[in-house]
Amino acid sequence: MKTFTDYLWFNTAREREMVHITPQVEAIVKASGVEDGLCFVSPMHITAAIYVNDHEGGLIEDIGEWLEKLAPARPEYRHHQTGEDNADAHLKALLLHHETTLPITKGRLDLGTWQRVFYAEFDGRRRKRVIVKILGV
Amino acid sequence: MKTFTDYLWFNTAREREMVHITPQVEAIVKASGVEDGLCFVSPMHITAAIYVNDHEGGLIEDIGEWLEKLAPARPEYRHHQTGEDNADAHLKALLLHHETTLPITKGRLDLGTWQRVFYAEFDGRRRKRVIVKILGV
Amino acid sequence: MKTFTDYLWFNTAREREMVHITPQVEAIVKASGVEDGLCFVSPMHITAAIYVNDHEGGLIEDIGEWLEKLAPARPEYRHHQTGEDNADAHLKALLLHHETTLPITKGRLDLGTWQRVFYAEFDGRRRKRVIVKILGV
Repeated sequence: MKTFTDYLWFNTAREREMVHITPQVEAIVKASGVEDGLCFVSPMHITAAIYVNDHEGGLIEDIGEWLEKLAPARPEYRHHQTGEDNADAHLKALLLHHETTLPITKGRLDLGTWQRVFYAEFDGRRRKRVIVKILGV
Repeated sequence: MKTFTDYLWFNTAREREMVHITPQVEAIVKASGVEDGLCFVSPMHITAAIYVNDHEGGLIEDIGEWLEKLAPARPEYRHHQTGEDNADAHLKALLLHHETTLPITKGRLDLGTWQRVFYAEFDGRRRKRVIVKILGV
Repeated sequence: MKTFTDYLWFNTAREREMVHITPQVEAIVKASGVEDGLCFVSPMHITAAIYVNDHEGGLIEDIGEWLEKLAPARPEYRHHQTGEDNADAHLKALLLHHETTLPITKGRLDLGTWQRVFYAEFDGRRRKRVIVKILGV
């Protein structure tokens, strides 16, 4: 059995941004030498998430608006009494369940035709790290 | 260490449908010969999800209504400018976090009394595939 | 390859409660002897969830209020026709996606500075069980 770990770094120009990362994750899978297994991808932060969906600009905007509607930025969160102003970013990350697992078959991500991996940043403009850990044979 | 992969196919009669799949997943676990490990289950599509909850008809309807309330079908999504009409199906799949992982102990899914595995289809009436990948010993 | 399984038990004093469990999960990781791998944590119930976020009291209250807003307790759920009264607890658990996977590196949970693991109880005051299953080397 093999294990392989790598880290990706992001520093988005905007506070909220969806970054397509399938190629970077695929490159790590290839570097791992794992032919069959699982690839776990997760931000090491609590205001970002990894999700799998369509790489289509309109839908990506729809997802952003939908997250804002269900987990809106507003001043009244209790978390802001600590001096923070990003409680909505925590809620948005929870809504997308921060982490995801991807299957590896024959040395590649075993994804469907339209499945793409995204890093969803909700509190950007700072350096943030994503862990990619692979288990398999 | 063993790995084992199988695929389930669905073609639901209705556009939205919750399909109970615990028996099919259990059968794959048995076929894998894995006694202790993890079983990853995920649609290979971006308008469906796997979730774990109660096999009770009323609750299944409640879940459907709740998803419709939080991620409603409506014409105005930007994604629809591409000619698609299923943006809400993408959002519903994101809300349920499309994939799930299940523990295997002593050769069986190690689930609680009421935990059952469901395939949640939000854009059906077409053939769709679910990957089941097992890692363990 | 090693596998290791343990179970945590909870019996919260309140119906809804967020319980910080990072130390318990860390202890299981240490007991497993796994240096590099994945740690899967999931309630064996359908009205509780595991999530990763900030250990800050204000935010924890924000999360609770947010869940109540998106998945409110109310009498009208169909599930209640069975005599149950906890449909909202099922929906809240689905919203947080009940389970989580955590990376292990160098024998420890490989979490970011602010990442903490929580057991989210939505139908407490009874004994409930969480499975922790570790795979790795």
